[in-house]
Parts: sequence; C-alpha cells; structure tokens
Amino acid sequence: MIRIGIVGYGNVGRGAEAAVLQSDDMALAGIFTRRPPESVHALREETPVYPMSLLTEQGTGADVLLLCGGSATDLPVQTPELARRYCVVDTFDTHARIPEHFANVDAAAKAGRTAAIISTGWDPGLFSLMRLLGTAILPDGAGDTFWGPGVSQGHSDAVRRIEGVADARQYTIPVQRTVNAVRKGESGFTAREKHTREVYVVLKEGADPQRVAREIITMPNYFDEYDTTVHFISAEEMAAEHGAMPHGGFVIRHGKLGPAHQYSSLMEFKLELDSNPMFTGAVMAAFGRACYRLHAQGRTGCFTAFDVPLGLLSPLAAETLRSQLL
Amino acid sequence: MIRIGIVGYGNVGRGAEAAVLQSDDMALAGIFTRRPPESVHALREETPVYPMSLLTEQGTGADVLLLCGGSATDLPVQTPELARRYCVVDTFDTHARIPEHFANVDAAAKAGRTAAIISTGWDPGLFSLMRLLGTAILPDGAGDTFWGPGVSQGHSDAVRRIEGVADARQYTIPVQRTVNAVRKGESGFTAREKHTREVYVVLKEGADPQRVAREIITMPNYFDEYDTTVHFISAEEMAAEHGAMPHGGFVIRHGKLGPAHQYSSLMEFKLELDSNPMFTGAVMAAFGRACYRLHAQGRTGCFTAFDVPLGLLSPLAAETLRSQLL
Repeated sequence: MIRIGIVGYGNVGRGAEAAVLQSDDMALAGIFTRRPPESVHALREETPVYPMSLLTEQGTGADVLLLCGGSATDLPVQTPELARRYCVVDTFDTHARIPEHFANVDAAAKAGRTAAIISTGWDPGLFSLMRLLGTAILPDGAGDTFWGPGVSQGHSDAVRRIEGVADARQYTIPVQRTVNAVRKGESGFTAREKHTREVYVVLKEGADPQRVAREIITMPNYFDEYDTTVHFISAEEMAAEHGAMPHGGFVIRHGKLGPAHQYSSLMEFKLELDSNPMFTGAVMAAFGRACYRLHAQGRTGCFTAFDVPLGLLSPLAAETLRSQLL
Repeated sequence: MIRIGIVGYGNVGRGAEAAVLQSDDMALAGIFTRRPPESVHALREETPVYPMSLLTEQGTGADVLLLCGGSATDLPVQTPELARRYCVVDTFDTHARIPEHFANVDAAAKAGRTAAIISTGWDPGLFSLMRLLGTAILPDGAGDTFWGPGVSQGHSDAVRRIEGVADARQYTIPVQRTVNAVRKGESGFTAREKHTREVYVVLKEGADPQRVAREIITMPNYFDEYDTTVHFISAEEMAAEHGAMPHGGFVIRHGKLGPAHQYSSLMEFKLELDSNPMFTGAVMAAFGRACYRLHAQGRTGCFTAFDVPLGLLSPLAAETLRSQLL
C-alpha cells in the first residue's frame, strides 16, 4: 500500500482524498491542514487530520504527499520545502513561473533524495501531454486548447473582489465556430474569438448593477479581452443552480502528412467533468503512484508529466498492461 | 541528426519515409527492401535503397530502424533478429501474441545492448496510452475503443481472397448510438452493436454476386459477428472513389468520482485521418526519436508506449517543453 498524505484541504484536497479512497493500492496517512484540525471533517471519520506543522517537525509515515494548495502563494513555498523530506506531487499552474518552480523543486528534491512531480492535474497535466503528442507527431500543423464549458475559480474570485458583489460564478465557454475552424487546421485566433465568458452575480444590498457590470467587463487580463455577459441573480438562484464546479475542454491538433503534405490528420482530446476538483484530485492520485514508483526505482529530483512513463500511473503490473491495454 | 533506416517499403514504409522528411532532426540512412532495390522508387531520388540482406551482412550507418513489415509473418522474425544489431521500432499489432513478441525482442535487445520499442502506431500505440490514462484516472468506470470510419486493410484483404473477387475495400463504421451510450458510461456492447461493415467489391467476369456476398457476410471472425452490407461496383468506381486509406476512431472512458461516486467524468480521444499509413509512419518516426534517446541514456531491452516518457517523442529540449507546452 502507498501511504498518501494530503496537504491542504479545500476542494482539490477533498478530490484527492476521494481518489485515494477509490484506489485499492493506496491508504491515507492523513490530512494536513493550516486550520485547527478538529474543525476539518474528512470524508471518513477514521482518517487522521493533523496540523500542517507536523510535516516539518516530525515524521508522518506518508510515502507521498499530494500538495493541494494554491499556485499563487502556497505551492511556490510548500513544494520545495516539503520536497526536502518527502516525495511530493503538486498542481502548480502559474505558467510563466514553471521554469523557476521546477528549478527550486529540483534542487530541493535532489538534496533530499526524493522524487517530485509538479504541475499535474488536467491543465497543466493531461492537456500538456496531448499538446506534446500533437506537436511531436504532426510537426507541420496547428492546434489550440479550449477550456470549458465550465466554472473558472480564478475569474469567479476576481469578480467577488469587486465592491458590491456578494457572490459570483464565472463560466468559460468555447466558441463553437472557432473550435470547428481549429479542427480544420486554421489558427491565429484571438482570445475573444476562442472563448466567451458568462458571469452570474449576486449583488449586495444597494449596489449599483451598472457599475458592477462595467467593472467586470473592463477588468484587465480577466475580462477585457473577451465578450462577457453579466447576469444578476438572487442568492437563492446561485445556491440552487450554480453550486457545482463542472469543467472540461479540448486539445486539438491538425496537421498535414505525406510527401506533398496532402493528408489531413486530426488529433483531439476532450474532457467533460461534473467536478473539476474531483478530477484534478484523481489525476494527482495517479501521479502520486508514479512518484512513489519513480522513487522506488532510485530516481530523484523534479519531474513533470513529460518525464513520467505513463505505465507508472496505473496500479496494474507492466505485463498486465501489455496484455490487457496495449 | 538521427539516422533512420526504413525496413519494408509498403504504405507504412512510405508513411515513415514522409515523416522522417518532415523531421528536422532526422536523416534517412536508407530504405531496405526484399524487392530488387532498383525497382523501388523512394520519395526523393537521393535516398539510397538497399537489399534487406545488407542489414545483417554489414553496418548501415542507421541509428534506428523503423520496421514497416506485417505483423503476421515479418515482424515476429525481423524485430528480434534486427534488435540484436540495431535500435528498432515496430508496429506489431497481433494482440494475443504481444507478450511472446515482447519477450523475444527483449532478450534480443538485451543481448545486443540495443533499445527496441514495439507495438507503436495509433492502435496499438496512442490508443493504448489513452486506455491506460482512462483506467488509471477513472478506476470506477467503463470505456471502449471504436475504430473508423475507415478502411480496414485486413478485412479488405480477406474479401480479396474470395473466389470471383477482383478487388475489394472494407470500411469499418462505428455505430453512433453505441458511441453515445459509452460516453454516458454504459458498457457490455457486442461486436455487432459497436461497428458495422461496408464492403465494396469489384467482381471478376462471370462471378456470382449472391455467392460472393454470402461468403463475405458469413466469414468467421471477420464478418459473421457484424452487420455487413456488400456493394458491387465497377473497377472504374473503385479507382475513382475508394483509392484513399482514411481511418480513425475514438477511445472513450467514463467514470464516477467523489465520495459517493456522484460526479461523472468523460475522457475522450479522437483521430480522423486522411491516410492511416501516413499517420502510422508519423507515430513510428516520433517513437524512433524516443528509441534513439532511450539508448543514448544507456537503456537497453524492449519497451512499449507505456514505458516511454512522452517528452522523448518531441524534438524540443525538456526546458522548452516545460516553458511552451506544459
């Protein structure tokens, strides 16, 4: 049994916990939280909940830690720090800072003789693998990634920070005609041509809807480059209709093959997820298994999805994989 | 530059050759054929064509051989034999014999201190990777693989062997309602429920169409478990309408996540290919690159797609992959 520790217990932490419970070859070593442990209720009562400080103060019996904190402030600190003592898997997704994060984690893991896999999940993670396959197999081609339809946590949070907003949910929606054009090999689309954004807002009493809508639509980086629609709804409608966290998307690669580049080839990978954090947790758990095995093979340092033989993600033995899934 | 040799020059061999010509980091060491070399015309005049016997008689300057022969009789002999002297990649796809083929190639490659990757292409190969990801991430689920719409070479050949048949082309077509049911998590479908078969036949003069149709539809393994439609056409129509070799398919995995297994998750990978052999050749070329690099890392023995870190398929350096594709 691989003993898994879960560090940070938000939505993704719960997703990782549920995935470990579905995995016959894994056991939960514990949940590690910054909150008072007695205030955290794990999915199963017998799962121990510890203060996060325990991780650095003493041993925990965990073979691999799944780091379920945020990319903005948690993971840049936690992943290198914990990689000095443990095999770790994270979901670091601040794209511009991946090289720096990789270098920090690599140095820590090599010093600690541990294995770390960063930037797992579905994007980065599975979608990265699909982008890689697309460009490696169809070098003379074009492709793109679309997200949604689904809830973007980052954009929802950004709207919630606007004065007068009590609650908000932002849906990212791929533009179907652009998806179809990319499938035919067209490229060079703008952010506005690729996705639209739909925002559902519950206003605080007395807030001015026109001002709030204007602040949303013109918000730099988050909304100004998109066509955004704002809907004002009641707290009851928000609770009843927008409680789930669905997401998904497509990775499309179109390329030309043959001596005269005359043969079109389309590769497409699609995800449709009722729950983004549950699926993210499931991907993390599979990479946790791979991390454990890489370390058991004597490998140390930092890895990404590109460096991991995918057979290591499965609980099945190599011979079984060859006879059943190849 | 990775010097690639192509062994066997049928449709897949030409696909591999075209893919090597599209790859900036590869050069063609030569084409190796059982036919008289002067009768073989490579895509570029300067590409040398050698008798296959040269491979075992003397060195050839090839770093990796792409073995483009058939799984029935060529590869079971060629792959182990050539793996004693060269790094090799094949497309062995006789499913029941993969364990035996793996063991033979592994012994040969270890004896020769070479690296071999077997069963590449899109199925086995890319589709195998998708089946593995599906089952590893969604263990509580179901899924299936569909092929087509596309031409099955094996089924076309089987029809051509019937007395009175001058030419034939067989299209495999997924049944859309079954595809949709699998996307919702249903499973347990029969061969007949998953695919239909459409056969286009040119008869020899005087042949009885009723007998030929009956022999096709009742042919064990190939057609008897499917709903098959037979169309008799002229040689002209065959040449005009059925000269291409399109193919493709889907790998679908549906699973349930969450503490009460309440969240549906759908993973789907799709290929739509104008030319099956050109795409197969392109996948082989990418695995040829990976084979070269595994060997450069000191790895020897037999590998499958499950054992290869996918980053090795790309010509880009690991840092570039992390900053551009992760």
